Amino acid sequence: MSESPLPSWRPGTTRDRILDFLDRAADVPADERVAYIDNDGTMWCEKPTYVQFDFFVDALQQRVADDASLAERPEFAAVLAGDMAAIGEIGLAQVAGALAALFDDQVPEEFDAAVDDFLVRYRHRTRGTGLNGIIYAPMLELLDELRARGFTIGIVTGGGTDFVRRVGRRCYGVEPGRVVGTLIGYRFDRDSEGKPIVRRTISQVGTANEGGPKVEHIQAQIGRRPILAIGNSGGDREMLEWAQASPHGGLGILIDHDDAEREFAYESTAVTFAEAEPITAVGARLGWVVVSMKDDWETVFPS
Amino acid sequence: MSESPLPSWRPGTTRDRILDFLDRAADVPADERVAYIDNDGTMWCEKPTYVQFDFFVDALQQRVADDASLAERPEFAAVLAGDMAAIGEIGLAQVAGALAALFDDQVPEEFDAAVDDFLVRYRHRTRGTGLNGIIYAPMLELLDELRARGFTIGIVTGGGTDFVRRVGRRCYGVEPGRVVGTLIGYRFDRDSEGKPIVRRTISQVGTANEGGPKVEHIQAQIGRRPILAIGNSGGDREMLEWAQASPHGGLGILIDHDDAEREFAYESTAVTFAEAEPITAVGARLGWVVVSMKDDWETVFPS
Repeated sequence: MSESPLPSWRPGTTRDRILDFLDRAADVPADERVAYIDNDGTMWCEKPTYVQFDFFVDALQQRVADDASLAERPEFAAVLAGDMAAIGEIGLAQVAGALAALFDDQVPEEFDAAVDDFLVRYRHRTRGTGLNGIIYAPMLELLDELRARGFTIGIVTGGGTDFVRRVGRRCYGVEPGRVVGTLIGYRFDRDSEGKPIVRRTISQVGTANEGGPKVEHIQAQIGRRPILAIGNSGGDREMLEWAQASPHGGLGILIDHDDAEREFAYESTAVTFAEAEPITAVGARLGWVVVSMKDDWETVFPS
Repeated sequence: MSESPLPSWRPGTTRDRILDFLDRAADVPADERVAYIDNDGTMWCEKPTYVQFDFFVDALQQRVADDASLAERPEFAAVLAGDMAAIGEIGLAQVAGALAALFDDQVPEEFDAAVDDFLVRYRHRTRGTGLNGIIYAPMLELLDELRARGFTIGIVTGGGTDFVRRVGRRCYGVEPGRVVGTLIGYRFDRDSEGKPIVRRTISQVGTANEGGPKVEHIQAQIGRRPILAIGNSGGDREMLEWAQASPHGGLGILIDHDDAEREFAYESTAVTFAEAEPITAVGARLGWVVVSMKDDWETVFPS
């Protein structure tokens, strides 16, 4: 173990640029030392499937054990068969909506318990590890370094807010209010004894938290502009540009998945936004720090 | 100055019940030691007019100095004349919407600067003091006591989120993401140089943050249930009941404005919710701590 900061990062331009930025951030008022970080593909591995997708599949399997007729619904049949072509034909949004509806009307405590139960049982489809084996070690070190320098850290994800809030608390030490994701609705209600409760209301699902809406939702929920944003896909572009354009001189960092051997090699694209220009080319052109997973990371996953 | 906690609170049942609750809260996990506090009429004086209303009037006067024709618009004429009957006839929501629209399309930095400029110039209509003269001293002490005991504090207001975020930071030391109010929309945009900005979009004003929506909006924005909630009006009822019903054994505190001599005497009602039963009667029936400003507070305003 090296004594230098960011030991899982290889020495070189990328690490130097990040450390230089962190040093410069000491001059930014503490209130404005704010960093937003994407989750899937930025904090942890998103291939071959999103962890949240696996959570939904796991929940579906449990429901089907109680009610086999569920498996006949086309959206669910496609998911259970792992038939990505069929899912694409039905439409990812419709499939995701049908899966999310498995938790409709639940109170948050009930949903949270289901997520927590899944997170401890989770195994990655190809690596076979639990959650700790799919979180990028260099990113955990960067979180520590940001905290040591007084940054406020938010996780800004295309995933469901409630799901990622449990992940944020468990894996990153980020409190729920600093997780900005795709929101469902919440409905004030009373239980049979008249006690107030809140119900998760899937029918009121909000705008997908990708692209410009990431910026809009940060403003609505947290109300603080970042000086640093980190992402890996086209859906992070606006957030990274917004951070970079900070009056304090901000930075955008893009993780490039170019390491087929240790992780996966793919051009990241947003779920909802098609970009004519690959996001790595956008990043290079705009002056972001583009992190090559292959060249810049000594370690990818914690050992 | 007494050595006991809450020196502006008179000894007695009310103070004892609050201190007992704070002692019991030590057994609640730190993560769940969460308190939400209303602003107008709970943290500061809301009579004879809301501070945010005065802000809008002040802004309107500045605009009229540049463009006298604005004063002819019925909503604005009523406001400038202080004609509450005319405002009622036009409808408070429509008048508030017209006033809010004075700041439509602004970037947050521009709006924040306008609020900050107003807050330092603010003078209360009858007391003649600045902001420090309208904030309740006992409530500031309670904030300090809550912080000393590891509580996370949020301000949950019917007022505009952006406005109260500036107040929260300046007057209470509460960060913007922990202010939950009535939201407008935000729209991602680019300036003439192509740099990303966010514009405040008044046309997308959200559900008024009163009643059940206070609970729904807390869940969406912060995702943490309170064990303590403090309010003063019918619009706080659901939030107080929600806190009280916490599995940890929560508490609701209601401020009763019964002190005509030192503040104002009135039955608080929510802006948008009519209650057949006065909120103080609801509070007494449900077992909230109902704070008599007249009897329970030794000091109302800081000297």
